[in-house]
Amino acid sequence: MNHLIAVDWGTSSLRGALLGGDGAVLEEISVPAGILMVPAGGFASVFAQHFGRWQQATGALALIAGMAGSRQGWQEAAYCACPAGFADVASHLHWIEPGRIALVPGLSCEDRGVPDVMRGEETQVFGALDLLSIDGARMVLPGTHSKWVQVEQRRITGFRTFMTGEMYALLRQHSILARTLPETDGELDAAAFRRGLVHAAESASLLHAAFSVRTLALFERLPSGCMPSYLSGLVIGEELRAQGLAGASREMVVVIGSPALAARYQMALETLGIASTTIGAQATWHGLSAIAQQLEQSA
Amino acid sequence: MNHLIAVDWGTSSLRGALLGGDGAVLEEISVPAGILMVPAGGFASVFAQHFGRWQQATGALALIAGMAGSRQGWQEAAYCACPAGFADVASHLHWIEPGRIALVPGLSCEDRGVPDVMRGEETQVFGALDLLSIDGARMVLPGTHSKWVQVEQRRITGFRTFMTGEMYALLRQHSILARTLPETDGELDAAAFRRGLVHAAESASLLHAAFSVRTLALFERLPSGCMPSYLSGLVIGEELRAQGLAGASREMVVVIGSPALAARYQMALETLGIASTTIGAQATWHGLSAIAQQLEQSA
Repeated sequence: MNHLIAVDWGTSSLRGALLGGDGAVLEEISVPAGILMVPAGGFASVFAQHFGRWQQATGALALIAGMAGSRQGWQEAAYCACPAGFADVASHLHWIEPGRIALVPGLSCEDRGVPDVMRGEETQVFGALDLLSIDGARMVLPGTHSKWVQVEQRRITGFRTFMTGEMYALLRQHSILARTLPETDGELDAAAFRRGLVHAAESASLLHAAFSVRTLALFERLPSGCMPSYLSGLVIGEELRAQGLAGASREMVVVIGSPALAARYQMALETLGIASTTIGAQATWHGLSAIAQQLEQSA
Repeated sequence: MNHLIAVDWGTSSLRGALLGGDGAVLEEISVPAGILMVPAGGFASVFAQHFGRWQQATGALALIAGMAGSRQGWQEAAYCACPAGFADVASHLHWIEPGRIALVPGLSCEDRGVPDVMRGEETQVFGALDLLSIDGARMVLPGTHSKWVQVEQRRITGFRTFMTGEMYALLRQHSILARTLPETDGELDAAAFRRGLVHAAESASLLHAAFSVRTLALFERLPSGCMPSYLSGLVIGEELRAQGLAGASREMVVVIGSPALAARYQMALETLGIASTTIGAQATWHGLSAIAQQLEQSA
């Protein structure tokens, strides 16, 4: 396999890696040049500024995952419909410069007449399949908008977005609950986190469970300092409840994310008796590498 | 029965009625003097300013429901624990001036180690029982924090708070969904409202269902002008889903609230095949009247 310039161009940051023929990371950069910071028409020059040197030195193909392929990005790469695997994505690349620079399309799926979308997570999922040498799994990519992804026979068959991280911020900063919360989150209090988690997992809806932040404070049953951890448990507990995992404890969930967030989800899954394994940010480079390999095979 | 000065002193408004011996409303006032507008130590004089005239003319007892009995109010009236009926509340009145002015206590209940609370709604529930001549029902008092109340044999056996109105405002104003919503809500679009309602009622969690506002806009499947109605349907649909009413269509739900909000909830319940009946703001005066009657009987 040839060299590859692997790029993860998100909303708020731009990361890239020069991969050797064996997939090893030869060099890596990370700059605060997310798509929201790029002026209109400026994508080509920002790209050249950061990756031109690698292109000249190696002549390598550049594959770009993430929001750079959205309507607000470099060019819009149309969503690839699920079910979709490596080959489907490789054949739907959006070429900026044929053979030199391509955007990886995001995926869309449909559930009862309502679409769902992802951009960038599909690449991490493909990377995780590669890293774990598995063909199928239930995966979660936690974050502002968590994605729960079902993979069968190396294809993403469906997924669902949960506005978990954003909901935490909304309740934390803008709701009546903000009055009973301290100014800063502080360290995670594991007991309070688990208490919130279990309460939400056993409740019918976060609309009700969230009110417990207020009543536990009113009756002085939980110190203010523990409340951010308790609230974090509530929103993650709601997300997990909605997966219907409770009875499926034999299933292994793959958690893909930054170490801190992945650890929090692992703690949450463990509390509910669900086994899990964790994959970090390297998943993106492996995913892009796998797509490039697919491209070489089809060529 | 004697005259009664019935007062509903809430967070943002102060309403009062002079009731005749037959319970008829002789005079009514409503002023923007909610407890948040009353300076510390100023409750007695605000009360005298608005109700002194009625007291002097009739010598009537004044019963005050609502947030005036909270920690931020006139004095704190300790919560009365569920199950609680007319007699329990009447015997737990918090007297400001013995025999002349009393605060109606709010109620508390407990679910798996987590408390829930209400202040003011208990009085409306008692009024609704009286108005409908019933001993039991499932009732909903929709609002910023909706209350779902279970009544059996004229006692409130339990209730749950849902942060529905507040969640609408959070998602409407502060979330990523705000970008796809028009500046003002406009008139209710019934079709969009019902579509949101059904989607949420069939979804596992609002954390997921709410993201459909974004994707339906992205794929241009719902005009921007309909989105506030759709979002309203989503949050109310989530609240209804959590009641587990779907299979219980023979049950009649009592909706207590202002005409516009009650009508919206009736439309929602009807869409899901649940029968309902509506009671308006007069429920408070009837509830206070019923508590006063109970007081006379016990005296």
